[in-house]
Amino acid sequence: MGAHALTASRELATFDSEHKNRILLAMADQLIADEDSILESNAKDISAAEENGLNAAMIDRLRLDPVRLAGIAGGIRQVADLHDPVGEILEEWTPSNGIKIRKKRTPIGVIGIIYESRPNVTSDAAVLCFKTGNAVILRGGSEAIHSNCAIAQSLQTGGVSEGMPEHAVQLIPFTDRESVKHMAEMDQYLDLIIPRGGTGLIETVVSLARMPVIKHYDGICHVYIDSEADLEMAEAIAINSKVQKPSVCNAMETLLIHQDIADKFAPSIANSLRENNVQLIGCEAFKNLISKTDPDIEVKAATEEDWSTEYLDLILSIKIVESLEDSITHINEYGSQHSDAIVTNSEANAEIFLNEVDSAAVFWNCSTRFSDGEEFGFGAEIGISTDKLHARGPMALKELTSYKYLLLGKGQIR
Amino acid sequence: MGAHALTASRELATFDSEHKNRILLAMADQLIADEDSILESNAKDISAAEENGLNAAMIDRLRLDPVRLAGIAGGIRQVADLHDPVGEILEEWTPSNGIKIRKKRTPIGVIGIIYESRPNVTSDAAVLCFKTGNAVILRGGSEAIHSNCAIAQSLQTGGVSEGMPEHAVQLIPFTDRESVKHMAEMDQYLDLIIPRGGTGLIETVVSLARMPVIKHYDGICHVYIDSEADLEMAEAIAINSKVQKPSVCNAMETLLIHQDIADKFAPSIANSLRENNVQLIGCEAFKNLISKTDPDIEVKAATEEDWSTEYLDLILSIKIVESLEDSITHINEYGSQHSDAIVTNSEANAEIFLNEVDSAAVFWNCSTRFSDGEEFGFGAEIGISTDKLHARGPMALKELTSYKYLLLGKGQIR
Repeated sequence: MGAHALTASRELATFDSEHKNRILLAMADQLIADEDSILESNAKDISAAEENGLNAAMIDRLRLDPVRLAGIAGGIRQVADLHDPVGEILEEWTPSNGIKIRKKRTPIGVIGIIYESRPNVTSDAAVLCFKTGNAVILRGGSEAIHSNCAIAQSLQTGGVSEGMPEHAVQLIPFTDRESVKHMAEMDQYLDLIIPRGGTGLIETVVSLARMPVIKHYDGICHVYIDSEADLEMAEAIAINSKVQKPSVCNAMETLLIHQDIADKFAPSIANSLRENNVQLIGCEAFKNLISKTDPDIEVKAATEEDWSTEYLDLILSIKIVESLEDSITHINEYGSQHSDAIVTNSEANAEIFLNEVDSAAVFWNCSTRFSDGEEFGFGAEIGISTDKLHARGPMALKELTSYKYLLLGKGQIR
Repeated sequence: MGAHALTASRELATFDSEHKNRILLAMADQLIADEDSILESNAKDISAAEENGLNAAMIDRLRLDPVRLAGIAGGIRQVADLHDPVGEILEEWTPSNGIKIRKKRTPIGVIGIIYESRPNVTSDAAVLCFKTGNAVILRGGSEAIHSNCAIAQSLQTGGVSEGMPEHAVQLIPFTDRESVKHMAEMDQYLDLIIPRGGTGLIETVVSLARMPVIKHYDGICHVYIDSEADLEMAEAIAINSKVQKPSVCNAMETLLIHQDIADKFAPSIANSLRENNVQLIGCEAFKNLISKTDPDIEVKAATEEDWSTEYLDLILSIKIVESLEDSITHINEYGSQHSDAIVTNSEANAEIFLNEVDSAAVFWNCSTRFSDGEEFGFGAEIGISTDKLHARGPMALKELTSYKYLLLGKGQIR
């Protein structure tokens, strides 16, 4: 599969955007044409999941229906509409040797995607890799194996009908750990692996992989309410960052409050959070303060572990800090370098925070929930990288490309 | 050391270019001030090398003298003069949510450099990392351990005198394999490892490392002489690519000749190569041709292995190919995606070659020897990456940086 993918990737690198887009549209059409067989395969996964006693939320994530399938096909058509970054000249200059140098954006080559349950990832990941001229090898989770095989088969059939190299999109039909190990050792064929899933999966891939891995670890995101904050705005941003979608990586997990405004802000935000059914875990100072102002509101005492916990739920840890610098130190120590926000009217304080917080995305006076490829205007997202190399933060099409240097001479020698 | 480096890197990220440059100049001055002690330490390495029976070339690479030390210090001053890319705004835009997004260039954080014998790498690598605001942990080879310790100590002393965080530049005083293993597992502190050395070292680091590794593998570089080539230019480029400095990674290892011009070009280049003491290894067609035209010139028969061998010496494998496409297929199959050239007067042929050869640097009508950070006008070079992620081809200051997104809102929530 690796050797086939490499060959396909070399062919794919010569395709122009218009040809790639025709293939993408054919993939979308084929998914709709194959609705019956895809839903049949999905039914097998659903009944296996029920037999295995998966919970209702997990089964719901697995389930496909005509509307969801149309959504997947619609997503492919959207990707076809996006600008293709491959082929862009990133820089061009002529050093003193007189050779014209062009830095040109290229596909990466062959990308491996290892993911867990949701079958829509099969299509989403495949088409983003394809749009950028990369061959892809997919390895999904066991729960969705029938759905994944059916979707991949459909993408292949549709693509090949418009001239796609057959091995540009491949799915590994095995879901055992051995198949992950094999992929991780195939560095002669795979230029990159992107694991999409929980920490356990990412850790496994990182420890085995010989090729680059782009990691999408936890989001332990903070909102810091500065002494100079507009407290009404602060409350709106804190509530939005926590409760709008608590299960995602860009949701706030820890709220930091400057001590100078704590007396005023803490009771008010505690009330709002409780109204939104958020369970509160606080530092000693916060807990003491609330026990005086609102003894009815329960605040659990925070342990050291709470500061580095990604709850992904309506649970929030809250800490009162002594200064702006304290908030930065806390975030750099306990955060996951994902997405962190300051609320302040002071431009000077904002600048210090933006510069010194070492995270992929740092926000001033807006919700951490904007840490998202769509919200960034990228039109798509393959994940949010917590790495600092190659791609940091929301990853879309550009982040699935590499570059090469073209040197145009007139017979120069050294 | 890792924890200290991380703390130092956070402090360093707040330094402006002017302050970093003052520190660099202080490092250069200190190296000169410490000449006696550095040369004394170097003498220990030299006598150990002599006792251990290292060959003359290796001992020469190890040796420092006042001129070489002044060269190292001069190199630091040159780096101080280079433009600091950190802090640049790479892009700025405002998507429909109204939040202004800035993509800002930042240091990577903490970089590990694992290298072999030459003591000058201690300084070269440290100052490039420092210039870009990164803390560095160096781990050199056993042959140069005394020199490396003395140079690192001198850089530290000089740097600290101008306010450098003490742990911004650290050298591991051990040279056993265990120390490489430790570094490779320190992914909580090290953002990147760059191994500079032979394939064995790189392989070891790749198999152990949990963090990203930027690899500088072999250069199996090709020059392809097209049917439309100016044969005089072709000869000059081929000779230059092979003989100007055969021991380096951007030297040609395989010459490909289009069959249509082989009768004319092959005997002539065979003669020139022989005059330059290059030993010839040829495909059957080349061997047969030369045996007819110049029976005195010895051509060894090429084995399959020759096509993927980096000789790093006055040895060259030569193959006659049937077509432009054949040359591309050969290069993509046997090359190392490093630096490959076409000589042709046909723009159409050049374009196909430049697009389809999947290498970091692809040359048209110039020598592969230009694959070099200095020749690219970068002013420095930490190596030539054979990876496709993060950095490809010659790496200098920009390639030692990452970025972060700053989002400037007015209270936006989702």
